[in-house]
Amino acid sequence: MSEFSLPIRVYIEDTDAGGIVYYVNYLKYFERARTEFMRALGVDRAAISDNGWMFVVSKMSLDYRQPARLDDALSVTLVAQHVGAATIDFDQTVRRDQTLLVEGSVQIACVDRDTGRPKRLDGGLRAQLIQATQQNKVTG
Amino acid sequence: MSEFSLPIRVYIEDTDAGGIVYYVNYLKYFERARTEFMRALGVDRAAISDNGWMFVVSKMSLDYRQPARLDDALSVTLVAQHVGAATIDFDQTVRRDQTLLVEGSVQIACVDRDTGRPKRLDGGLRAQLIQATQQNKVTG
Amino acid sequence: MSEFSLPIRVYIEDTDAGGIVYYVNYLKYFERARTEFMRALGVDRAAISDNGWMFVVSKMSLDYRQPARLDDALSVTLVAQHVGAATIDFDQTVRRDQTLLVEGSVQIACVDRDTGRPKRLDGGLRAQLIQATQQNKVTG
Amino acid sequence: MSEFSLPIRVYIEDTDAGGIVYYVNYLKYFERARTEFMRALGVDRAAISDNGWMFVVSKMSLDYRQPARLDDALSVTLVAQHVGAATIDFDQTVRRDQTLLVEGSVQIACVDRDTGRPKRLDGGLRAQLIQATQQNKVTG
Repeated sequence: MSEFSLPIRVYIEDTDAGGIVYYVNYLKYFERARTEFMRALGVDRAAISDNGWMFVVSKMSLDYRQPARLDDALSVTLVAQHVGAATIDFDQTVRRDQTLLVEGSVQIACVDRDTGRPKRLDGGLRAQLIQATQQNKVTG
Repeated sequence: MSEFSLPIRVYIEDTDAGGIVYYVNYLKYFERARTEFMRALGVDRAAISDNGWMFVVSKMSLDYRQPARLDDALSVTLVAQHVGAATIDFDQTVRRDQTLLVEGSVQIACVDRDTGRPKRLDGGLRAQLIQATQQNKVTG
Repeated sequence: MSEFSLPIRVYIEDTDAGGIVYYVNYLKYFERARTEFMRALGVDRAAISDNGWMFVVSKMSLDYRQPARLDDALSVTLVAQHVGAATIDFDQTVRRDQTLLVEGSVQIACVDRDTGRPKRLDGGLRAQLIQATQQNKVTG
Repeated sequence: MSEFSLPIRVYIEDTDAGGIVYYVNYLKYFERARTEFMRALGVDRAAISDNGWMFVVSKMSLDYRQPARLDDALSVTLVAQHVGAATIDFDQTVRRDQTLLVEGSVQIACVDRDTGRPKRLDGGLRAQLIQATQQNKVTG
């Protein structure tokens, strides 16, 4: 696997009165890509939930280069950049053809659902993510 | 109490590329008004949740007359029109000054959180709602 | 063509604290299906916009039967039920496998972008829509 | 003026299936505060729009400390940290009572509505913003 990529179409729900995609909504696009990446890895959300933990976004930073517009066919990418004991760092972009529109970094943390305290990532999942990361680095 | 009313300001998040409020978002305005109405009645959401039931929207119909725009100062109203064994029917509007922009009916059902089955409204709450309804009818 | 159908995946962005899809968001699903239906018909949104008119939702009614949940793979359908001089009536559903979750009717109106006044549908588009409607009636 | 602050109530529309505010929605809270801050300064959005320019978010970074929950009464703050030729940098927080939930930095750029190119801030507005910034620094 090199970079993971998800095609996304811009609908009217995503736009604002400026005639462009409302900047907040790129974060939804980013998360859809992370969700599909985890699904492709076989991460079982029901099992996670039964174990009493969940993933939350702990940090993010975004850089907006160019706006996307209604009906655009976009590509949303991610690379798992680093896998810590309880966190995963993703680098993500939104592109239209070869044009970079938005890029950002998002840190996901694994936490206890009740207390919100950090939880160590499950060993099997962590190994999968590290493998995906290394493949990213080799081929990305 | 006559009609219950909540002031709402239109922000860029509420608009779409047509330059007007995205029609879906009026439903959020309607719900904010219902939430504040229930809060004003003293409905204790934590108690509801602890009892294992919740409110869901079971039906609604909307009629769009005129669009709202960015920065508009709106007024969102509701009248509790009918209180059934497990349902409440609200008539709602969105207005800008005296101009009617949107009107609709929303039916809320009380259901069991786990099974989704209808649950009879708590007697005390039902009495409060019926009283509010009658006041609406007298003074509305 | 019988009924038009669009597959939609439920993401976390679509859910609420009740653990189910926030009921407002089914309207976004409905609209995505209408947009793809119009795209499949070859409706040119840029041409519409250049002509100074736009489509708006003028009425809708919804009936919520069962909730959708995170990660559900849904099917969103539409049938163009009636084509008037300046309006189109759609019947729409959201289903998970064979289970009907939400059904509703949505009326779209063609309006002048500046005045908001109704505009007669373009003749070519109207003919296409009527044809689609009749196919729906025969095969739906 | 010291720090600018806007009270915000958490509604069901803001939450997700994790039972907390969907992390994307804090950006809407941040923007509501910036909008009210600009309104309080007397910035005339209609004049801006007539001049053919608009404000867009060019960069942002967020740090999530604690989740907000349904019905929380929050306080959203901003300080105008730096005013450049065509940009404004804001530091923002979301708090529940004295507890810091989210903090972030948002850079706003003034751009030409058609070309997206940076435009120098209007002199009068820039002077107002610099004054607000200095008051922040003195009293904040």
